Amino acid sequence: MSELTVTNRFQLENRQLPDAVMTDAIKTMAAHASVRRYKPDPVPEEALEAILTAARSASTSHNFQAYTIIVVTDPERRRQLAELSDQEHVSQSPLVLVFCADLYRLERVCQRQGYPFGDRHMDLFLQAVVDASLAAQNAAVAAQSLGLGICYLGAIRNRPLEVAKFLGLPPRTFALFGLTIGYPARQPRIKPRLPAQVTVHWETYSDAHLDEGLAAYDATMAATGIYKNRQVAVRADGAGAAGQADSASSTNGATTAGDQVAPAPNVYGWCEHTARRLAKPHPLRRDMKTYLEQLGWEF
Amino acid sequence: MSELTVTNRFQLENRQLPDAVMTDAIKTMAAHASVRRYKPDPVPEEALEAILTAARSASTSHNFQAYTIIVVTDPERRRQLAELSDQEHVSQSPLVLVFCADLYRLERVCQRQGYPFGDRHMDLFLQAVVDASLAAQNAAVAAQSLGLGICYLGAIRNRPLEVAKFLGLPPRTFALFGLTIGYPARQPRIKPRLPAQVTVHWETYSDAHLDEGLAAYDATMAATGIYKNRQVAVRADGAGAAGQADSASSTNGATTAGDQVAPAPNVYGWCEHTARRLAKPHPLRRDMKTYLEQLGWEF
Repeated sequence: MSELTVTNRFQLENRQLPDAVMTDAIKTMAAHASVRRYKPDPVPEEALEAILTAARSASTSHNFQAYTIIVVTDPERRRQLAELSDQEHVSQSPLVLVFCADLYRLERVCQRQGYPFGDRHMDLFLQAVVDASLAAQNAAVAAQSLGLGICYLGAIRNRPLEVAKFLGLPPRTFALFGLTIGYPARQPRIKPRLPAQVTVHWETYSDAHLDEGLAAYDATMAATGIYKNRQVAVRADGAGAAGQADSASSTNGATTAGDQVAPAPNVYGWCEHTARRLAKPHPLRRDMKTYLEQLGWEF
Repeated sequence: MSELTVTNRFQLENRQLPDAVMTDAIKTMAAHASVRRYKPDPVPEEALEAILTAARSASTSHNFQAYTIIVVTDPERRRQLAELSDQEHVSQSPLVLVFCADLYRLERVCQRQGYPFGDRHMDLFLQAVVDASLAAQNAAVAAQSLGLGICYLGAIRNRPLEVAKFLGLPPRTFALFGLTIGYPARQPRIKPRLPAQVTVHWETYSDAHLDEGLAAYDATMAATGIYKNRQVAVRADGAGAAGQADSASSTNGATTAGDQVAPAPNVYGWCEHTARRLAKPHPLRRDMKTYLEQLGWEF
């Protein structure tokens, strides 16, 4: 299957399932690829209403609905949000939905009824984060089913306090991520995922297929050329880098068809790219807990 | 519109959108209602493969794919999981997917490439939780598009250490929630959600419509009869309960059509139910942070 004709993950993984299980919703999800370049056309009002209704229909823990969606369409505000998130494409997309985890509303409900808001523990935090995430994924799938493109914007967490101020967030809320939505200026390629036997286990957790799966994925990802000109630099002091890391950076693009089953250990693939990212502390994210506490969250 | 003929949230909220934006995916999501009673029929293998592929296709932060799905079908293991989660329906559903946040795999990747695994901070925790949640919601929508019913199982976090042992989880993973999947024994009613102006804001956070929205939602939810026989008891020592809480419990079902715009403050509706739940510390969840630390998570 030529890469250019691949329109969903089933094709990408050379699997064919009976038509009976290929519903429109499944086809939409299997066709997902993040879109970072948008046409200027606005998202029609009815489309936005359908997207938001899909979001509000998602499951929610205890029916708490512990999230708030902030719709940002104003061009100047999108520009500012792009700056705060270090992501140019945010200003290009005509619509940004910001998904906030929200315990403030529940606190107000307790006050309204004359009860104290009990422990604000880690599990309530998790409930709010999961509520926001499930709503967001419904919004994403709804948008994509309408021919719109989407991209999650985790980088909205790069400056949690400034973003909270920008959005006028009350205490005990925070912007978990944004979701840019718009008509794609071009259709991006679907990105291969880890083989199913790496991420899906049966009855109990098992890493029996981990090594083999990582090697296969490394070869697949290196072959896409996705890491060309995007290699993560190893720090000059060598901290965190074993000898092989340096040699890896000089072998990018050297993968040949013959390497794909058992790639050389110094292939710059998903493993090397991911390990380099994780080895370096993220200057803007490592203090997330402190920022969240400053925003009124307790754990 | 009679409640019995309502098949999606647009109808429930008396809104009609043009057919052009009512895609099959959006109709599926707008028809969501959690299913807790299942037929014994197993989920066909091809359906499961489609569901898992949809899950694996979801967006993921930095392509880290920091989650693992554990497929549980063995009847005895489902019975044990039902016990661990205090949820009988788990043993009835033929299939349970357990979604785990997973940093263990990334740690293995770092080891494989010869890098140290850097800071394991709150933001990495969030990335793993969000990755797992987005994958899960794709699985849920995929299943529902195939005519299957689903229910999220947050109660899998009631006993995090025992569940981790039961699933054989390595350090730095935890079971975020389960997802039961099966053919519905009966079609549950769609539950009303907070009015859109409460959960969706424009450009900045705003609680301008909060009071009005809560009153309307209280009336709507009380009218469904959902809280009959499900009222949360107020503690005998009165802690956390204002005077109105006691009187509220005696007025359940007293809502009449005339009350619906501005219900009496002592209606037992969503606000009272939710405030009572939040006022009481959850005995099994309040120590979540400690449990997660015991499972190797750092914040």
